[in-house]
Amino acid sequence: MSRGILFVLSGPSGVGKGTVCGVLRRKLPELIYSVSATTRSPREGEQDGVNYFFKTREQFHHMIETDALLEHAEYVGNYYGTPRDFVEKTLSEGKDIILEIEVQGALKVREKFSEGVFIFLMPPSLNELKQRIVGRGTESQATIDHRLSVAVEEMNLLHHYDYAVVNDEIDQACNRISSIITAEHCKRERFLGELFQQLETVKTADNV
Amino acid sequence: MSRGILFVLSGPSGVGKGTVCGVLRRKLPELIYSVSATTRSPREGEQDGVNYFFKTREQFHHMIETDALLEHAEYVGNYYGTPRDFVEKTLSEGKDIILEIEVQGALKVREKFSEGVFIFLMPPSLNELKQRIVGRGTESQATIDHRLSVAVEEMNLLHHYDYAVVNDEIDQACNRISSIITAEHCKRERFLGELFQQLETVKTADNV
Repeated sequence: MSRGILFVLSGPSGVGKGTVCGVLRRKLPELIYSVSATTRSPREGEQDGVNYFFKTREQFHHMIETDALLEHAEYVGNYYGTPRDFVEKTLSEGKDIILEIEVQGALKVREKFSEGVFIFLMPPSLNELKQRIVGRGTESQATIDHRLSVAVEEMNLLHHYDYAVVNDEIDQACNRISSIITAEHCKRERFLGELFQQLETVKTADNV
Repeated sequence: MSRGILFVLSGPSGVGKGTVCGVLRRKLPELIYSVSATTRSPREGEQDGVNYFFKTREQFHHMIETDALLEHAEYVGNYYGTPRDFVEKTLSEGKDIILEIEVQGALKVREKFSEGVFIFLMPPSLNELKQRIVGRGTESQATIDHRLSVAVEEMNLLHHYDYAVVNDEIDQACNRISSIITAEHCKRERFLGELFQQLETVKTADNV
């Protein structure tokens, strides 16, 4: 059985990662969705264990100390992290897993999983991104200003990624991500081992 | 306007390249389909200028001498080649073009277009490939034997390609190729130039 592929969906604050992942989850039910741990407060409608594992800072520090997180980062005053065991187990079972994480976390995952496929969700333009962050209306002005400057810095990190998907229209963005998943399963590296085994069998049997 | 992408669909003799390309052509009408020149005789139903440009050996030699071919190769006693102008013109117009060619020709195109995307159409197994070549029933036994040994050698060339698509079921194979085309348009390299231009504008205007 061939190993699953780790897909990391990231991008600047406010680009719509969560919304895209929600739609993707319904469109591709066979894809395993990694749930992150965080110390930030739940937004309206978010459920513990579904959108995030919501943790206190004390609980989160314990996970860091016991090496239970694949990556973790502080972002706008809160911790975010990816539980390690679940990712490893899913890949070894031959299933794909997708992580939706902030840019800082994605770069750390890249260090540990260079074979992962890193997808950068882009706003149609920087002005569009600005509107989305301001329009969310759940944070104070100081937080909004900080998120804006961070988001612009994050856009500069595109060159660390394998793919860029413009989130102009959610269904289109999801179709592009779905195509990337299919295409990655067609990379020649995934076929070479089995092919050479078949060719050896043919040579030994001398039947072609 | 960004440049189009050259996709090369190749694979061993008998794998079903022509059939897959025929279906793909109906599914993706916006994709430009490169028509090869050849000296082999038309098979039943094949039309000049649609399936191939059918040429005499004299005509073909003239095309070689005038550098009108991107690549050419002799294969089972016949010449095959790709007219150069049409490919260059299509890419510069920002349109994608797909070439369906034999393995030898594909490797030559790779030398001239390292930025092309090379897709290897695979049989589900080597035994399946053997059945398809024997079952076509349009060639002599000597030709069949030659095609079989050539096909096995050609399978060894998979490692020169970017992707492998198993032709187990034609619609599935076409969907995989369509996904590869979409994914290649999402490669980060295609976005970096425009992004950095936007970021420069933002810095200059100091409006974010």
